[in-house]
Amino acid sequence: MAVNLVPLDPAALEPIVGVELGVARAGIRQPGRRDLLVMRLAPGSAMAGVFTQNRFCAAPVLLARQHLAAGWEPRALVVNTGNANAGTGADGIARARAVCEGLARALGCAVEQILPFSTGVIMEPLPAERILAGLPAAVADLAPGNWAQAAEAIMTTDTVPKAASRRVALSGGEVRVTGIAKGAGMIRPDMATMLAFVATDAAVARADLERLVRAAASRSFNCITVDGDTSTNDAFMLVASGGAGVPARDEADLGLLGEAIDAVAMQLAQAIVRDAEGATKFVTVRVEQGRDEAECRRVAYAIAHSPLVKTAFFASDPNLGRILAAIGYAGVADLDAGGIDLYLNEIRVATGGARDADYRESQGVEAMRQAEFLLRVVLNRGSAAATLWTCDLSFDYVKINAEYRT
Amino acid sequence: MAVNLVPLDPAALEPIVGVELGVARAGIRQPGRRDLLVMRLAPGSAMAGVFTQNRFCAAPVLLARQHLAAGWEPRALVVNTGNANAGTGADGIARARAVCEGLARALGCAVEQILPFSTGVIMEPLPAERILAGLPAAVADLAPGNWAQAAEAIMTTDTVPKAASRRVALSGGEVRVTGIAKGAGMIRPDMATMLAFVATDAAVARADLERLVRAAASRSFNCITVDGDTSTNDAFMLVASGGAGVPARDEADLGLLGEAIDAVAMQLAQAIVRDAEGATKFVTVRVEQGRDEAECRRVAYAIAHSPLVKTAFFASDPNLGRILAAIGYAGVADLDAGGIDLYLNEIRVATGGARDADYRESQGVEAMRQAEFLLRVVLNRGSAAATLWTCDLSFDYVKINAEYRT
Repeated sequence: MAVNLVPLDPAALEPIVGVELGVARAGIRQPGRRDLLVMRLAPGSAMAGVFTQNRFCAAPVLLARQHLAAGWEPRALVVNTGNANAGTGADGIARARAVCEGLARALGCAVEQILPFSTGVIMEPLPAERILAGLPAAVADLAPGNWAQAAEAIMTTDTVPKAASRRVALSGGEVRVTGIAKGAGMIRPDMATMLAFVATDAAVARADLERLVRAAASRSFNCITVDGDTSTNDAFMLVASGGAGVPARDEADLGLLGEAIDAVAMQLAQAIVRDAEGATKFVTVRVEQGRDEAECRRVAYAIAHSPLVKTAFFASDPNLGRILAAIGYAGVADLDAGGIDLYLNEIRVATGGARDADYRESQGVEAMRQAEFLLRVVLNRGSAAATLWTCDLSFDYVKINAEYRT
Repeated sequence: MAVNLVPLDPAALEPIVGVELGVARAGIRQPGRRDLLVMRLAPGSAMAGVFTQNRFCAAPVLLARQHLAAGWEPRALVVNTGNANAGTGADGIARARAVCEGLARALGCAVEQILPFSTGVIMEPLPAERILAGLPAAVADLAPGNWAQAAEAIMTTDTVPKAASRRVALSGGEVRVTGIAKGAGMIRPDMATMLAFVATDAAVARADLERLVRAAASRSFNCITVDGDTSTNDAFMLVASGGAGVPARDEADLGLLGEAIDAVAMQLAQAIVRDAEGATKFVTVRVEQGRDEAECRRVAYAIAHSPLVKTAFFASDPNLGRILAAIGYAGVADLDAGGIDLYLNEIRVATGGARDADYRESQGVEAMRQAEFLLRVVLNRGSAAATLWTCDLSFDYVKINAEYRT
């Protein structure tokens, strides 16, 4: 079902010196599938991350945030799919900690050097004993070339694994950026996405890494929405191993590296939307000429979250009224509805809040029949803009989510 | 498909002395169906109303608001289905005014004494000439007993007409309250609902009527949501004809009358949810022990708008994690997730933000298999509460809205 998402080419994924990945079959939810990932970082690595703003954030998010804040050098990430360990209270924290302790013992480091991540069903007890039993196999599997297997091991309802790589030449030499992510529902990232891990072999100071991860999140994962449901387990982690022996210190190098990280993050974020639950359309919603970015984002989200607009996307029905209605209730208090223009790709479909005189509906149908199209809203009241990527609401979204636990 | 909605019994609808209704087949969108309603008010009638807060409000809403504000005594409402006359710019206003002028001529009153209302597809030109051609038949049909026909004439995707009546004894004698409403999608009323018209034969001053209509809206139409899409055409109008010769002036009488109006409005509002597009479940979401009503409503709306929660309702799947996740992203910044209890009907399913130790999932499935159930959230941080009524998200919602214009 994924919209224009080319299958992952493992050969195109650059290994990151200093970052090893190992996967195992721990039988967390489905027997026989790879559901456990360990990502080991070489000494000297730095890490920064952004986490969900959901007040019901999961036990592993609480623990990962705490371990990151404690200031130890990170040694490994441990990620399981099949169980989100969210809505599990103090017992959930204890189980997540037990997993970290097990991996710390295996790797000979402090428990604070391990960051745990979980994804899957919410409010079920994490089968920590099965994860602990699976750790030795994951550790034995550790190798720098396992990014594709790692991308697969963190999937939930994703239909394809998601990974991306870039090379970039800094002043001191070439470095690499590689990342993986998973979707595919409960997606309206708020400072982060479901789960994304991006690593570079450049050497980057922690403070710079924090700037880079925030900037990348704001341009990628924070610009996508599937269903408006902000997950309890969102996390986007950025690792700099320094394994290339190339520092990114001055603004020029940090700028170049930031662009590569942004490109990887954006590719992963868009891949999540392309592979969203039931998606048949990949839609870019761009809102222009607003007073500030916040109001542009508010309008874009109103459109992207409207079930009526999303079912019209699914039906390739250029139902402009639903789009204008969503703009109208987006909460921009003094918005002049009579000043709004709408475009589908390059076709002007509405002018001054009403159907454009030259527009013929067949043009709109033709544009929306494509698997990808641009919906552009011109507010005509300022110079700010915002872009979101979203998908349609199909029968299969309902089917997948009605049957998720059965 | 309507959930526990008994068919309309025309005999149970009390005529309102001073209010006559007439319907006609104007062929606005579908040939042969009753799609035009005229509601004539006797001299001495008072009217108050609340309208959509959508910035893209439709031409008839702009005109009705303007005519109401002009302070003339209202003489008639004219309502068409099949075309919302929204997103139609200055031409839409002109067409709505032409309809009002036609009816003013027919009834011998000023154009400002006519209030227009439209519902149906957005952004298509209103076929004013067909409505004008249909007016004589609607006027010829005017009679006090036509409430059931009126309820039918304003339907769009509604599967059943919606009407309700109450009698109430005031100090000066008995009065009646009768109302009609239509849904069935693009429903998240904001100060009003799609279209609802309620009339009483009590004599009520305009200022009191305005208080009553606001109070009734806040307890009924502003407590329902189907898909979070606030319509461009919402209006809830309350008429007092004075035809019973019984005044409602003092607080006691206004209180009694207000209760009857609230009861009618609540029955109509709930009927809209019961007959929502594709609905198979009618769910009451009650949020208790919040700091203030606003945060309780925010939490209730987050639950009621979550596509993941709504598909779980559809599947009778007590997926508590999705409910807790929605509470967590509702935007209550300092909410303690560990302090929240959840109930399905009388079953405590979560305690302190985690699954209740005594809860068995079969109990949750049993509760959610019912066509109606109560989801109760206890925030444990104050004494405010709020209640919303909503429905599930089914295959048929997608089907109805993907095929609406075809």
